[in-house]
Amino acid sequence: MSVLVVGSVALDTIKTPLGQCRRVLGGSATYSSVSASFFSPVNLVAVVGADFPKVHINLLQKKGINLEGLEIKKNGKTFSWEGEYSWDFSDPKTIATHLNVFSQFDPKIPKEYKNSEFLFLANIDPQIQAEVLKQINEPKLVVCDTMNYWIESSRSQLVKLLKDIDVFLLNESEARQLSGETVIVKAARAIAKMGPKKIIIKKGEHGSILFSNKSVFSVPAYLLESIFDPTGAGDTFAGGFIGYLAKNKKVNENTIRRAIVYGSIMATFAVEDFSLGRLGNITPDDIKARYEKFKALTCF
Amino acid sequence: MSVLVVGSVALDTIKTPLGQCRRVLGGSATYSSVSASFFSPVNLVAVVGADFPKVHINLLQKKGINLEGLEIKKNGKTFSWEGEYSWDFSDPKTIATHLNVFSQFDPKIPKEYKNSEFLFLANIDPQIQAEVLKQINEPKLVVCDTMNYWIESSRSQLVKLLKDIDVFLLNESEARQLSGETVIVKAARAIAKMGPKKIIIKKGEHGSILFSNKSVFSVPAYLLESIFDPTGAGDTFAGGFIGYLAKNKKVNENTIRRAIVYGSIMATFAVEDFSLGRLGNITPDDIKARYEKFKALTCF
Repeated sequence: MSVLVVGSVALDTIKTPLGQCRRVLGGSATYSSVSASFFSPVNLVAVVGADFPKVHINLLQKKGINLEGLEIKKNGKTFSWEGEYSWDFSDPKTIATHLNVFSQFDPKIPKEYKNSEFLFLANIDPQIQAEVLKQINEPKLVVCDTMNYWIESSRSQLVKLLKDIDVFLLNESEARQLSGETVIVKAARAIAKMGPKKIIIKKGEHGSILFSNKSVFSVPAYLLESIFDPTGAGDTFAGGFIGYLAKNKKVNENTIRRAIVYGSIMATFAVEDFSLGRLGNITPDDIKARYEKFKALTCF
Repeated sequence: MSVLVVGSVALDTIKTPLGQCRRVLGGSATYSSVSASFFSPVNLVAVVGADFPKVHINLLQKKGINLEGLEIKKNGKTFSWEGEYSWDFSDPKTIATHLNVFSQFDPKIPKEYKNSEFLFLANIDPQIQAEVLKQINEPKLVVCDTMNYWIESSRSQLVKLLKDIDVFLLNESEARQLSGETVIVKAARAIAKMGPKKIIIKKGEHGSILFSNKSVFSVPAYLLESIFDPTGAGDTFAGGFIGYLAKNKKVNENTIRRAIVYGSIMATFAVEDFSLGRLGNITPDDIKARYEKFKALTCF
């Protein structure tokens, strides 16, 4: 089963205590598409400018990602983000955001994608996420991500969107910000009342927790020796999550739990290098090996 | 199989954002003994003063804890600690510590405890922990806890002791402090070089991780709606851990993993009220129910 991913494709300039990079391939839809592509076919809908390097197009194509929905604006520049991480590698400081072509992004879903069953609304303006959702006929599973910026600036649009979301992903601080609750269990319960059937709270190096009305599932994180650049970890998690579900076609408690484990594992590859440096070069065997290690790490 | 617990029995005065209490039953050996008593017989070695309320003695006896090794100094006062927690419920601020009878604590292990196979050196001066260890003939499993205060003030004694420890327990910040490493995997590896065969790093609401030369085991925490008072959580974890192992007599990868899960579960009861308010009143069925919930929370 294919996954439809709608979100940002960007050029990132990043500084961490361990190094820096300039205008490398990034964006929520990029990380999630590449991650999902290891499990199922991916259709990407996004926009870039004329400055978007051909080498990045080649990489996405090499991963088998269908780029029919990737609009290239001849008179525009690609969305770019510049950020800096401190030693705790948590939320980065944004140095600059240039929306560029993204400021007028009005995604037209290609006709052949309108019956998509697995839809990932990657981190973009919730208003645009809602516009996309309207264009999909009867999605089987709608997964949605967001970020602190939208919770602050577009709260009402986000809350409205949440009524139609199956799985809502957010990190701990976003969950607290959106709900006004400090205890995570209470935050999740408050967000559940806004509509999403399931909520996944990502805790970075401390793992993640799935809340649904029937059950709670908590997993630790895979243990990494070092993190190089956390950019895209959440997007990569989401891509692995929905990709695994699309591959299995079934969405139930068991497949969702395993999808979270695969999402966690995919994220570990994303943080081991800048951009797609590591994630773009892994093999299915790498994923399998890390899944087996993860099982050994957690079983009792 | 019995567990021998040596550590502090105290009277605690505690303030949290949710309430306060004065001179309630506390101490590392108290929490760990009561926790272990749900799994196996416990022999306690500690010291208190003439002011130690009989009602506390009764509670410990009711739990079947053997108090032959609890010295009552007729001319002394019980060790007391006064602390305050802020909303993050992490390391408390110490307002006052009165060592009292504890300042001259020179534990004499009763003859019939000298062949103890399961020994827990609860959080006290590492010099005293070493003196205790010398008096035990051939322990099968020596578990040791400590705190930031000893890492700072008695580092060399602690490091010397660690050569003879099977399982060393400490929290994240203590692991960083002792090793000088910020990344937990590296901190654990550095501490392993100091001697302990296994290291358990407690991460509070984020679970715990076991490191040994053969494997790593990571578990999330049981999800609580609210924490009332975190005092004694680590001691209670340790008591459940060693109690479960003593009950099963076997110390191997499987039993140690399950012991960590039981330790985590016991700690959740400790934090639900001041002192032994909750932990002292649970039943084996409460533990069983929480273990089943924990399995459901974590399996995939």
